[in-house]
Amino acid sequence: MRTKAAVAMEAGKPLEIMEVELEGPKAGEVLIEVKATGLCHTDDFTLSGADPEGLFPSILGHEGAGVVLEVGEGVTTLKPGDHVIPLYTPECRECPSCLSGKTNLCTAIRGTQGQGLMPDGTTRFSMLDGTPIYHYMGCSTFAQHTVMPEIALAKVRDDAPFDKICYIGCGVTTGIGAVINTAGVEIGSTAAVFGLGGIGLNVIQGLRMAGADMIIGVDLNDDKEEMARKFGMTHFVNPSKVDDVKAAIIELTKTERDQIGGVDYSFDATGNVQVMRDALECSHRGWGVSVVIGVAPAGAEISTRPFQLVTGRTWKGTAFGGAKGRTDVPKIVDWYMDGKIEIDPMITHRIKLEEINEGFEMMHKGESIRTVVVY
Amino acid sequence: MRTKAAVAMEAGKPLEIMEVELEGPKAGEVLIEVKATGLCHTDDFTLSGADPEGLFPSILGHEGAGVVLEVGEGVTTLKPGDHVIPLYTPECRECPSCLSGKTNLCTAIRGTQGQGLMPDGTTRFSMLDGTPIYHYMGCSTFAQHTVMPEIALAKVRDDAPFDKICYIGCGVTTGIGAVINTAGVEIGSTAAVFGLGGIGLNVIQGLRMAGADMIIGVDLNDDKEEMARKFGMTHFVNPSKVDDVKAAIIELTKTERDQIGGVDYSFDATGNVQVMRDALECSHRGWGVSVVIGVAPAGAEISTRPFQLVTGRTWKGTAFGGAKGRTDVPKIVDWYMDGKIEIDPMITHRIKLEEINEGFEMMHKGESIRTVVVY
Repeated sequence: MRTKAAVAMEAGKPLEIMEVELEGPKAGEVLIEVKATGLCHTDDFTLSGADPEGLFPSILGHEGAGVVLEVGEGVTTLKPGDHVIPLYTPECRECPSCLSGKTNLCTAIRGTQGQGLMPDGTTRFSMLDGTPIYHYMGCSTFAQHTVMPEIALAKVRDDAPFDKICYIGCGVTTGIGAVINTAGVEIGSTAAVFGLGGIGLNVIQGLRMAGADMIIGVDLNDDKEEMARKFGMTHFVNPSKVDDVKAAIIELTKTERDQIGGVDYSFDATGNVQVMRDALECSHRGWGVSVVIGVAPAGAEISTRPFQLVTGRTWKGTAFGGAKGRTDVPKIVDWYMDGKIEIDPMITHRIKLEEINEGFEMMHKGESIRTVVVY
Repeated sequence: MRTKAAVAMEAGKPLEIMEVELEGPKAGEVLIEVKATGLCHTDDFTLSGADPEGLFPSILGHEGAGVVLEVGEGVTTLKPGDHVIPLYTPECRECPSCLSGKTNLCTAIRGTQGQGLMPDGTTRFSMLDGTPIYHYMGCSTFAQHTVMPEIALAKVRDDAPFDKICYIGCGVTTGIGAVINTAGVEIGSTAAVFGLGGIGLNVIQGLRMAGADMIIGVDLNDDKEEMARKFGMTHFVNPSKVDDVKAAIIELTKTERDQIGGVDYSFDATGNVQVMRDALECSHRGWGVSVVIGVAPAGAEISTRPFQLVTGRTWKGTAFGGAKGRTDVPKIVDWYMDGKIEIDPMITHRIKLEEINEGFEMMHKGESIRTVVVY
């Protein structure tokens, strides 16, 4: 079949809207009609050429929601008409990682996914002249239709709006999951969130859900404060307005009883390795846990004195918020529908596929939290 | 009173054996007759001058065992005749750290202890001419008698031999505790231990207690292999004999089912920051936990790509094995007396206080695992 897609022809160039060929689903695969997809910084990172693993031409996009149109041979858990959210982190429930109970990083199709291919080592997309087009993060939601492995689709309820729940395919789950799954924040905790973009706001609402007492947001842009407070931020620090952001956070958390200070949990949602260090070092001596969420530039390294760890801090990271997609994503959709979490205020822009390059421009200018393409 | 001590007069010079003045215990303090004390790398580190917080003149030593001679006003948990192990990490059971349940890093007397002073801000030791002599790590066991806060003494059973259980005051507890308290190793785990000195051997026996299936020891010195195997090491890697120590460990842990490889837990017992990185990076994608035990040179930093954390590895550290001294140390003494752990083979040398400088020379030459001064 033919479908419409925004194709990344080469690094650093705008996406090109065009008709492409899409082969039907092979065994274990599913054809999806994508109804909505968010624009994420990770798409932008790859498009820019900064991602050393970026492949071209490819169809980017990994934060979608849609409907099953057709299932391939052997597919048992999905049928046409099912509403689904594509998962860039699949959940096969059979590999050593899935069975470990300790990680969401399913390895069933890791090799081919990283190469922009379906599990059988080929692509379903091609240009009209036959040139193969790579898949991206196993999803490629910047196309009106896409083909995905069954294990990379979360079945969700039918009454949830596509243009909101698509965000659960990446940002919402990453932020909330970092709090719940990776950090394991307890009621009454103190926390700092570095970077108040789409991920940071979701970390904040995760902290609110988890019952944190003090939620300190950190951003260079004062304009972020208002929205972050709506999601549960209790204190705001602009690093450009204090001598030392770590000291400022530690000071905020000191109490009459605890003169050491530092947050119980900290989260980096910036991708800046110096910020990752600050996040670790402002966490509490003895038990502070710091979680890296942001994706750093190629080659960048984090560092600290080992004394920071020896005195009781823990440095962790999270991918897709530690969420097991097929298991956890439907629950998060329920939380949204039940009003336990908010998504609507973060979807600041709705655009057509033809406007996708303008959508990335708004991201660059910091004008949007989340822009969603509605097909 | 007067007592005999090995005094560190200045950095980089041999200890001097001399008579010193020792004031009796003030309120909340206890006078101890030290019966035995181990020589630890940390003492050597401070004596060398490499420790930026080193103070002189001081009485080093922090791995002791002894008997209570006299208690100061208000001391309720100890009485003359009690056998005790000095704790460089006290356990007040009242500060926010003790009450957190999350850390052993009691802060009750942290400030003064770091300044080489008793909690009231003075020293009990002085030269015969009146010059104050600093305490060291709150213990100063390189003296035949010492004064310590009540909260920094673990009461232990009377039938345990001083010249063995003194090692529980540091090395044994640090190594075993890193496994049990900090890493939380489960039965059936795989693990790598970098550095097969006194700490590394205790990590190994901790792993054996915890039921690890594969215990990989790593050391540049092949001579360490035999002893480590006696404590439970199952595999040995000499980094100088393989192309890449990380790859070698990952290869060892691959199975037919798990082609990713990497150890579930790794431990640095070297203090070398490059080794700390290797330890992290040879741990398993998705769930590997790496624990820094070694003390790095001043200013040295650890680093890695944040991707290592984002893909599921956790970087932690431990001090005194995460053990709460007054609570846990008596248990470890019981384990020794019950034959659950071994100490005797690690006490390779017993010397008199007058031979202490020779003891440090043996340490430098790698001839000893643990040398114990018996008073």
